[in-house]
Amino acid sequence: MARLVIVGSLALDTVKTPFGEVKDALGGAATFSSYAASFFSRPSIVGVVGNDFPQQHLRLLQQRGIDVSGVAIEKGGKTFRWSGYYEYDMNEAKTVSTDLGVFASFSPRLPDGYKAADYVFLANIDPELQMQVLSQIKKPKLALLDTMNYWINNKRRQLLEVIGKVDILLLNDSEARQLFETPNLVKAAAAALKLGPKHIIIKKGEHGALLFSNGSHFSAPSYPLETIRDPTGCGDSFAGALIGYLAGKGGSGEKDLRKAMIYGSVVASFNAEDFGLERMKRLTMPEIEKRYEEFESIRKF
Amino acid sequence: MARLVIVGSLALDTVKTPFGEVKDALGGAATFSSYAASFFSRPSIVGVVGNDFPQQHLRLLQQRGIDVSGVAIEKGGKTFRWSGYYEYDMNEAKTVSTDLGVFASFSPRLPDGYKAADYVFLANIDPELQMQVLSQIKKPKLALLDTMNYWINNKRRQLLEVIGKVDILLLNDSEARQLFETPNLVKAAAAALKLGPKHIIIKKGEHGALLFSNGSHFSAPSYPLETIRDPTGCGDSFAGALIGYLAGKGGSGEKDLRKAMIYGSVVASFNAEDFGLERMKRLTMPEIEKRYEEFESIRKF
Repeated sequence: MARLVIVGSLALDTVKTPFGEVKDALGGAATFSSYAASFFSRPSIVGVVGNDFPQQHLRLLQQRGIDVSGVAIEKGGKTFRWSGYYEYDMNEAKTVSTDLGVFASFSPRLPDGYKAADYVFLANIDPELQMQVLSQIKKPKLALLDTMNYWINNKRRQLLEVIGKVDILLLNDSEARQLFETPNLVKAAAAALKLGPKHIIIKKGEHGALLFSNGSHFSAPSYPLETIRDPTGCGDSFAGALIGYLAGKGGSGEKDLRKAMIYGSVVASFNAEDFGLERMKRLTMPEIEKRYEEFESIRKF
Repeated sequence: MARLVIVGSLALDTVKTPFGEVKDALGGAATFSSYAASFFSRPSIVGVVGNDFPQQHLRLLQQRGIDVSGVAIEKGGKTFRWSGYYEYDMNEAKTVSTDLGVFASFSPRLPDGYKAADYVFLANIDPELQMQVLSQIKKPKLALLDTMNYWINNKRRQLLEVIGKVDILLLNDSEARQLFETPNLVKAAAAALKLGPKHIIIKKGEHGALLFSNGSHFSAPSYPLETIRDPTGCGDSFAGALIGYLAGKGGSGEKDLRKAMIYGSVVASFNAEDFGLERMKRLTMPEIEKRYEEFESIRKF
C-alpha cells in the first residue's frame, strides 16, 4: 500500500442544524479526510492541537490505523475551534466564529517517515503551510490540493503558486468561479489546467462533482439523500475517500480517478447522515460497496 | 409512429444576454418543444397567435413536419410577447414584460385528428387550459406536464388537479421545492409521486436533471458548455426532445425514459448555443447522436 500523508486542521466544532446540535465535537479537515481515507488505506496526518484536545480523539484516529505522529501538541495552546450553523436548505455553512488557536503560528515539520509519501492531500489550510508540507516530501506521485474562498481573497499569489505544484486541484463551484473570474465552469477548469495541475475537480454539493482533464470530462452524480442531518465535513470526506482509494490502489490515471470520485461521493453522502464523525464511525465497507453500486444504477441509460 | 400532441405558447420573444440580443424572435413553449420533438417524431401543436404573427414562422414549423392545424389565428388579436434578459451568470431569466395577448382568452379546441393522440405534452400554460386539452384526448398513452412558479402561486388547486391526471410531472428544482414545501428534492419527489404521476423529472439547469420513479432514481448529467449564448427555450427543448423520442419509439418505460432524458439534455445543450431557434435550425441528427455518445463517455466509471 502506498504511503498517504494528509495535512490539515484538527478542530473542535460547534454545529447547529435544523436536526440538532453538537458542542466541541471532533472535526477539522484532516480529521474528516483521514477518517474517510482509512476505509481504503492507512493515512498519516500532519497538524497541531492544543493541550485542551481530548486524548480520546487521537486514540479514535489511531484505532482506525491512522498515524498521528505528525500531530504536534502545543502545550498551553488552544485547539482550533469552529462554530457555525446551517439553515433549512442545508446548502451553506454560516460561520459564527473561527478561533485559529494553535494554527495561527503553526509551522509544520514532517516526521522523517512521512517524507517518502507517494500520495499527499493538502487539505484546506493557509497555502503557505501547504507549500511547506509539500516541499518536505521528496517525490510525491500524486498531490491533491483543496482550498477555500478565504485564501482566494487573502493569499491569492501564494495559492496560485502552490496550485502550480500539485496534480489535482479541488474546489467547490463558487470558489472556482471566484478564483478564475468567470461564471462558466468549463472556462474556469480550462484556466485551472493552464496553471499546471493535470486535473481539476469541482465539487457542486448536492449536484455532484465534475472532473476536468486535458481533453476529457467526467460528471459524478450526487446521491439523493432523504435525510441530511449535518453536512459538516462532507467536502473533506469526499477528498479523503478519493485520495485514500487512489493510495490503496496505487492508481493515478483518469480511470482510477473516476472511480475514486464515486467512492468520495459515497463516503460524503454517508457523512451527511449524522453529526460530526458519528455516521463514519458506524460505517462499514459493505455499506460503501452497496452504495457504490447504487451510484452505478442511478446513471445507467 | 405514435401521434404526439403538444399544447403551449407560440410567442414573439425579445431577449438580451451578455452575448447579444434579438427582438420579436419566434419563441414560446410549443415552438421550442415541437421543434425539438421534430428530430424524433411528427408533433401536432395546439396554440393561438394574433394576426401580427408572421406567416413564415408557421411555415418554418410546417417544413419540419409539424402539424400546425391546431394553431388558432385570432383576427385583430396580438400574439403573446415575452421580453427578458440574462445577466452574466446566465442562470435565471429576468422578465421585463409579459403580454399574454390572445392567450388571455384562449380556449383550446382540438382538431378531430388530434383527439386520438398517444403522447401529449402539456407545456407551461394555465393549468385550466392544460386540463381542457387533456380532457379532449381520448386515451393518451403518456401525458407529460410542465408548469412554472406563476401557476404554483396563482392556480395551485387547479395545478394539483391536472398533475393527478398525468404520467410524468416536469419541474425545475426551485419549483419542486416551492410546490411541495421542502428544500429536499427527494422528499419533493416522493410527495409528487403520491399525487398520481408515475414519474417526476426535476430539471436543475446546468446541473442536469433527476428522474424519480417508484423505487428507482436516475441522474442525467448536463453537458459542459463553454459557450452559452441564450438559454431561452432550453427547458422546452429538453421536454420536446424527451417526448419526441418516446413518441418516435413508442416507448414509455423507465429504460426508454432514461434515454429520452439524455436526448432531451443533448438538444437543450445545443439550443443554448445560439439565440432563439437559430441553433436548432442548423442542428442535424448526426450532431445529436455524437453528443449523445459524449454523454455516455462523461459518466463512465
